[in-house]
Amino acid sequence: MAKTNPGRFFEDYRLGEVIRHAVPRTVSGGERALYHALYPARHALHSSDVFARDCGLAAAPLDDWAAFHVVFGKSVPDVSLNAVANLGYAEGRWLKPVWPGDTLRSESEVIGLKQNSNGKTGVVYVRTRGLNQDGDVVMEFCRWVMVRKRDVDAPAPDAVVPDLAPVIPAEDLAIPGGLDFTGYDFTLSGEPHRWADYHVGEVIDHVDGVTVEEAEHMLATRLWQNTAKVHFDATNRADGRRLIYGGHVISMARALSFNGLANAQMVVGLNGGAHANPCFAGATIRAWSEVLGKAETAAPGVGAIRLRLVATSDGSVGRRRGEDGKYLPGVLLDLDYWALMPL
Amino acid sequence: MAKTNPGRFFEDYRLGEVIRHAVPRTVSGGERALYHALYPARHALHSSDVFARDCGLAAAPLDDWAAFHVVFGKSVPDVSLNAVANLGYAEGRWLKPVWPGDTLRSESEVIGLKQNSNGKTGVVYVRTRGLNQDGDVVMEFCRWVMVRKRDVDAPAPDAVVPDLAPVIPAEDLAIPGGLDFTGYDFTLSGEPHRWADYHVGEVIDHVDGVTVEEAEHMLATRLWQNTAKVHFDATNRADGRRLIYGGHVISMARALSFNGLANAQMVVGLNGGAHANPCFAGATIRAWSEVLGKAETAAPGVGAIRLRLVATSDGSVGRRRGEDGKYLPGVLLDLDYWALMPL
Amino acid sequence: MAKTNPGRFFEDYRLGEVIRHAVPRTVSGGERALYHALYPARHALHSSDVFARDCGLAAAPLDDWAAFHVVFGKSVPDVSLNAVANLGYAEGRWLKPVWPGDTLRSESEVIGLKQNSNGKTGVVYVRTRGLNQDGDVVMEFCRWVMVRKRDVDAPAPDAVVPDLAPVIPAEDLAIPGGLDFTGYDFTLSGEPHRWADYHVGEVIDHVDGVTVEEAEHMLATRLWQNTAKVHFDATNRADGRRLIYGGHVISMARALSFNGLANAQMVVGLNGGAHANPCFAGATIRAWSEVLGKAETAAPGVGAIRLRLVATSDGSVGRRRGEDGKYLPGVLLDLDYWALMPL
Repeated sequence: MAKTNPGRFFEDYRLGEVIRHAVPRTVSGGERALYHALYPARHALHSSDVFARDCGLAAAPLDDWAAFHVVFGKSVPDVSLNAVANLGYAEGRWLKPVWPGDTLRSESEVIGLKQNSNGKTGVVYVRTRGLNQDGDVVMEFCRWVMVRKRDVDAPAPDAVVPDLAPVIPAEDLAIPGGLDFTGYDFTLSGEPHRWADYHVGEVIDHVDGVTVEEAEHMLATRLWQNTAKVHFDATNRADGRRLIYGGHVISMARALSFNGLANAQMVVGLNGGAHANPCFAGATIRAWSEVLGKAETAAPGVGAIRLRLVATSDGSVGRRRGEDGKYLPGVLLDLDYWALMPL
Repeated sequence: MAKTNPGRFFEDYRLGEVIRHAVPRTVSGGERALYHALYPARHALHSSDVFARDCGLAAAPLDDWAAFHVVFGKSVPDVSLNAVANLGYAEGRWLKPVWPGDTLRSESEVIGLKQNSNGKTGVVYVRTRGLNQDGDVVMEFCRWVMVRKRDVDAPAPDAVVPDLAPVIPAEDLAIPGGLDFTGYDFTLSGEPHRWADYHVGEVIDHVDGVTVEEAEHMLATRLWQNTAKVHFDATNRADGRRLIYGGHVISMARALSFNGLANAQMVVGLNGGAHANPCFAGATIRAWSEVLGKAETAAPGVGAIRLRLVATSDGSVGRRRGEDGKYLPGVLLDLDYWALMPL
Repeated sequence: MAKTNPGRFFEDYRLGEVIRHAVPRTVSGGERALYHALYPARHALHSSDVFARDCGLAAAPLDDWAAFHVVFGKSVPDVSLNAVANLGYAEGRWLKPVWPGDTLRSESEVIGLKQNSNGKTGVVYVRTRGLNQDGDVVMEFCRWVMVRKRDVDAPAPDAVVPDLAPVIPAEDLAIPGGLDFTGYDFTLSGEPHRWADYHVGEVIDHVDGVTVEEAEHMLATRLWQNTAKVHFDATNRADGRRLIYGGHVISMARALSFNGLANAQMVVGLNGGAHANPCFAGATIRAWSEVLGKAETAAPGVGAIRLRLVATSDGSVGRRRGEDGKYLPGVLLDLDYWALMPL
């Protein structure tokens, strides 16, 4: 038993250390096909090599969230195996497209540590980077998790809380090399709405819903080699339910957002996010978005749009928090991200 | 909410207009592998590159019904989002094989319009074409659907009902370039029965059954980017059931028909078809076939066979309609198609 | 009905005959992606082309058990369609890696026949070989199954029971050409434990569990084109349950064994195995291993380790049989295999 991975506890992290995560992964058209089977993903740039080439790319890249899940999944055994809660995300940027044939690995730098006042847990802040076979960083994001201590008597480290940007400035977003939306085909993309048609404060109900099944979220979560047992083992919780990986809800909501945001083609920035309530099989996931900001970019015909993406289990639209400031029980996800859209 | 797609209503269609459907799709070995995971598909020509090459093709093409589903799925948002019923198919032809790496898009021409006497709905006839990245038509088919009117007071168009062939003449079937069954390996294909061994009127019980699950039909239907919400959203119907995409039943029945029709290798014509009764998860799908016709072709060693393929939920064989002429409740599908078989 | 395959009965087998199995299959990155979605597979050599190249291979091969399932699946219609029980395995060897793009077919030689004393059934012993498009044998294994007689009055054949090795000698294991573990990266592989760290008799609890779903085991079993109806048809058994393909349990247990055996990279020998109890959806599969032996190999940095892999439905560890010598009811699988590991 000594050979199995017990995961790290709070006192096992050192500020500034870089943890190289295991199990590199080569992706192919197989991952792309599975992504389309698991989520109602229809953004044309990720669906069609021809459409992607007409936008200046070499081919259709792997869905941006699929890249995130692969990078994230590798960090789970080292970062969140003993996590009590996934507290937040910040400063997430997609820096290079991931192509079929690429091999991804990931690593995390410990950028903050703060023991909780109860002495039993602490918050670990990491910046996780995904690298391809050339060593290029394809994406990075910060997240912070609450982790149990192995020994409550272990001394608390000096508290360091990183200063994370609440929103990534538009000028810091990485636009994929060659991206050009000046010849964009709005018929093939599925909707006529361009960047200029969206205004800050606008709320979009994405209408469609998907009732989720155990087999589906487990297929997805395994595909990303995320091993957290709470997603797979029905005997793990007292209530016999398997907790759905939060990333499954992200991808489902993002795919549903096609209906109203078909031209928000590429996700390039993750400003923040919260898994507001747990999701279980049988829930019907719906989504709505709010336009939080807009910015121009240096790429031809390409605008950036900042969106709030909210996934719900109750079909509500526009409301996130109750009068007490807490998330309403029907809210599953509250995500703040940047996407690229034709002007 | 104004940005989401409400779908077209009956009065939105114009005779002769061509609707270019959105979201082109590049297929790969991933779609092929998923097709084999979703259906018990075993026809050797679609399973093995080597077998396909020995039959004169460049490689194993994507399953013919997978190509149909991709082309069909793209038409759903424009043709059947507000459909009350999918009434029929005719004049379906597979014109070119679809290879891994191909990018498909589709378009539909409105070839008929007829308002129903109740004034609330009308029948829309379309000819849908699937095109590859070179602009070649890889398949086409007609279908007609009953669509709601948005405004019951909208004027009725002049009624035009297209004259569709009840059966595609064998000489109009497209045989894939190079196809040659003179060196066909009946051991590797799985059965010794050749074209000459089948006689018109013969009924074949395919014996095997598959009990279908929610996760499976949703994975399949999403894979084809078919967005009709009735397949995914358990809250959409009063009874809380998700209606299984009719094409899932087609592919399941066709795959089951391997047992007795292992050498009916390629589907090249769709003469007609009806989704006789709805299918829900938990049903055990079985299938039987009847030989409706036979014809020679110009390709070496290649015969054409016209088959009725019937899928059932009750295991019945040989009966389709009751004394009242209506489909029996255990019949799910009644399909009339042409396949190619070694002489 | 005469055209469907009734399967072979005991009296249909002749000692020494070689049965060429139908439906060759080309595998691609799609099968690899699906394998990762269906099982929590994380062994780095099968996950990453780069890791595989750093170990001297051309790319990441298809998972060894996926290759087994493809080869095995083809033999089902000819060997086990009328089988009452799958009795055992022996002398299984993986002789060449299977790469994306390879086309596999399989054939079985009848190496033993013995009618049972009840006169109603007999045991058929076969040696099944999987061949690639070049005719190279990529793997082979023996199995023996109890098969019904069609006619209880058919004469019994002379009893021939093959002399099968209880354990494959380490020197008979095939090491993939070029394999070199001298530069092995233990961080990327996920665990620091090398061949020298394991001792005979050591028991490893793999800790994690996966609760299995109907949709998942059917997707997997279809992917390998295994057609045994008991896996798919809920009406086939009186209790309405679908029996899970034993190979699904093998792959699940092997994948779970990553946790503690992350460096047991390649499976090269199958000494024996028993499907101790049937597995049904809803079971939570766990696994433990016992080190049965160790041997050196001629390849640089490569050791062989002989492992017992036990899958359970009750989470028990270390116990397989009761005092009566029979498998305990919570034991699903008892497998004896050789794997390759860095020294």
